[in-house]
Amino acid sequence: MPPLRIGLLGHGTVGGAFAQLLSVQADRVTELTGRTPEIVGVLTRSRGDFDEILEQSDLIVELIGGVDDARRYVRAALQSGRDVVTANKQLLSRHGEELWELAREHGRALGFEAAVAGVVPVVRVLRESLRGTRIERVHGIVNGTTNFILSEMTRTGGSYEVALAEAQRLGYAEADPSEDVGGADAAAKMAILARLAFDAPVRIEDVRYEGIEHITPDDIAYARELGLALKLIGTAERIDGGISVRVHPAFLYAAHPLATIGGSFNAVTVEAPAITEITMSGPGAGGVQTASAVLADVIAAATGGARAVGPIPHAVRLPIVEDVTSGFYLHLRVVDRPGVLAEIAQCLGDEGASIKSVVQRGLGEHAQLVMVIHPLLESRVRSALDRIGKIDAVQSRPHAIRVIEEEFE
Amino acid sequence: MPPLRIGLLGHGTVGGAFAQLLSVQADRVTELTGRTPEIVGVLTRSRGDFDEILEQSDLIVELIGGVDDARRYVRAALQSGRDVVTANKQLLSRHGEELWELAREHGRALGFEAAVAGVVPVVRVLRESLRGTRIERVHGIVNGTTNFILSEMTRTGGSYEVALAEAQRLGYAEADPSEDVGGADAAAKMAILARLAFDAPVRIEDVRYEGIEHITPDDIAYARELGLALKLIGTAERIDGGISVRVHPAFLYAAHPLATIGGSFNAVTVEAPAITEITMSGPGAGGVQTASAVLADVIAAATGGARAVGPIPHAVRLPIVEDVTSGFYLHLRVVDRPGVLAEIAQCLGDEGASIKSVVQRGLGEHAQLVMVIHPLLESRVRSALDRIGKIDAVQSRPHAIRVIEEEFE
Repeated sequence: MPPLRIGLLGHGTVGGAFAQLLSVQADRVTELTGRTPEIVGVLTRSRGDFDEILEQSDLIVELIGGVDDARRYVRAALQSGRDVVTANKQLLSRHGEELWELAREHGRALGFEAAVAGVVPVVRVLRESLRGTRIERVHGIVNGTTNFILSEMTRTGGSYEVALAEAQRLGYAEADPSEDVGGADAAAKMAILARLAFDAPVRIEDVRYEGIEHITPDDIAYARELGLALKLIGTAERIDGGISVRVHPAFLYAAHPLATIGGSFNAVTVEAPAITEITMSGPGAGGVQTASAVLADVIAAATGGARAVGPIPHAVRLPIVEDVTSGFYLHLRVVDRPGVLAEIAQCLGDEGASIKSVVQRGLGEHAQLVMVIHPLLESRVRSALDRIGKIDAVQSRPHAIRVIEEEFE
Repeated sequence: MPPLRIGLLGHGTVGGAFAQLLSVQADRVTELTGRTPEIVGVLTRSRGDFDEILEQSDLIVELIGGVDDARRYVRAALQSGRDVVTANKQLLSRHGEELWELAREHGRALGFEAAVAGVVPVVRVLRESLRGTRIERVHGIVNGTTNFILSEMTRTGGSYEVALAEAQRLGYAEADPSEDVGGADAAAKMAILARLAFDAPVRIEDVRYEGIEHITPDDIAYARELGLALKLIGTAERIDGGISVRVHPAFLYAAHPLATIGGSFNAVTVEAPAITEITMSGPGAGGVQTASAVLADVIAAATGGARAVGPIPHAVRLPIVEDVTSGFYLHLRVVDRPGVLAEIAQCLGDEGASIKSVVQRGLGEHAQLVMVIHPLLESRVRSALDRIGKIDAVQSRPHAIRVIEEEFE
């Protein structure tokens, strides 16, 4: 039985889990691929020599993270005729076109299921199941850390800081959580999904994103009374011949399919006229779960299945739409005196905003207004908020969070 | 550009939608496969000659349904070196081993994503994404007709008959709905999923199944008060070195991921230690949706991707476990007099059943008892029900519906 010689770059949580899973499943991999898998070398930041490992390998598994070194390794591996499997979303959202082009040129497989939503098979489904389908929209929860924190804030009523600390204690958030909580991680994943869905190049710079650091327990509590659940939502959609790719916190109605995705789970919905919609959910992170996605890509590369699927098609640039329509939840601290609501409503009305609901809490100097407005171009909402912020009786710039309107049964 | 000559067997809802989708997406298929797709012949029950169509085709798409003729066509196509794509769950649940063996022998692809859960990509995910994973359990809602009827009964409080008529009016149920409402359709799909999940042969005869014809509005109303939703659930799981594959109505707690799958949607959850769980949902039927799944299989066959994935592995027979553990909802019509509940509780207690909740409705001669019992071997529940049915004050054999206990969050 010929060997399947794997060079492993990275030996952290996922790298370690992959090495272990491969050893447990070695017989199964042998049966499926006709080759006996072995890890011929491991590169970490402190040990191993990449060129030596490459020389001895048939296939490179890149789990070392980072961008510049990882790019160099993946380039060298493809150029020397090796298949590559990677879980590196930052690398692909920055240099995907270059690497997919290299894979195409050298007739090699470049597997990256594990780069988006862990073991949730969204990359394979977009690349294979929906290959003949024109996709309109992909949206979902693609960051487990923020979903855990928001679920925790909802469950306990506590602050962002406390929920973050709990996430760190349980291993759902890193010591430096900024890439997750600031939205950059989700933005990189949405760039990759948009690339697959629309065959258009999407760089991380094309993705507008916001994080969850500014969400308050009040926001969650008020919205809960309105039947809304808060999630960090990534969206990639076609609009007027262009595309919009964005990540932001959003309130969902309780019956929305994504509203019930709790804890660190991820979920992605793909919409197209021909398929209505497909939703996939599961653990978006975790060493062994992500390692399972890596292993499936290794098997697909070793059987030739990944190469037979063909390269990622050439991309045709589509205009990036910056201004999109959205419903909004607004939270304002106001001095409760006659005419204030009318003045606020006037600013909204002038920009074409239609108010869906409004609730006042408290009295006197410390009143709070919570409003939900129907979908409107975001630029117009911003204009209204600028004007509202200048009203004397409004004590701070209104806090605005998007609301996803669709209501399901 | 060489042609991709497709012989189409069947021109009903799915066959017609496939022909249309193929024509709309012809350019995309050409780009992806390097071949220009054309339908060289169509066989229906009343016209066309199979041998002639086969002769002219590179690939056969079998959407004609039925078992015996379809089997003959698929055999002949594989034996003569054609790839085959089929949506025929009854064929595969009866003769799958024979056909997969033929495909293996002749090195051909046999695609069947559309046979289970329409466009929901559960076949591809089991065959590719989870190839290296030992799967413990697959369960879900795999029949859209019954899910529509149960959703409708829940929404309106109306009877099974009225909901069925509505499903027929809207095209969700056939004129003769027996295969769907009796559970045979779901049983065939679960046999196929079990085969893929466990690499064990599972024939339709190995699947125990019940339908939804006997569900009453009372059952749904009482259970709703207990926070339960009724679904027709298919389950395939490993138990004690064997497997159990079954289909039956079941109550789910409101927080269960399958509880919110409404209308004619399907959803399947795959569980394994290495992946925790993945859930996929979407339209389980519909002409164009199912045709999309067929088209993806055609593209995979034409690029060689399907063959590179490799054949369905040889199956090793596993014992079929007949008696499994389940929670139960019990609905009894009783004469309300002292000691009746104690007598009933005694019968349950003797078999080891532990009562989770009990509610009495009405008084005197027309009282009703609704009980939920904790999980217990089904054979013991049956014994208890036999004894309870003989109690004088119990007016009919208790109505028993399974309850899936797992509560999430």
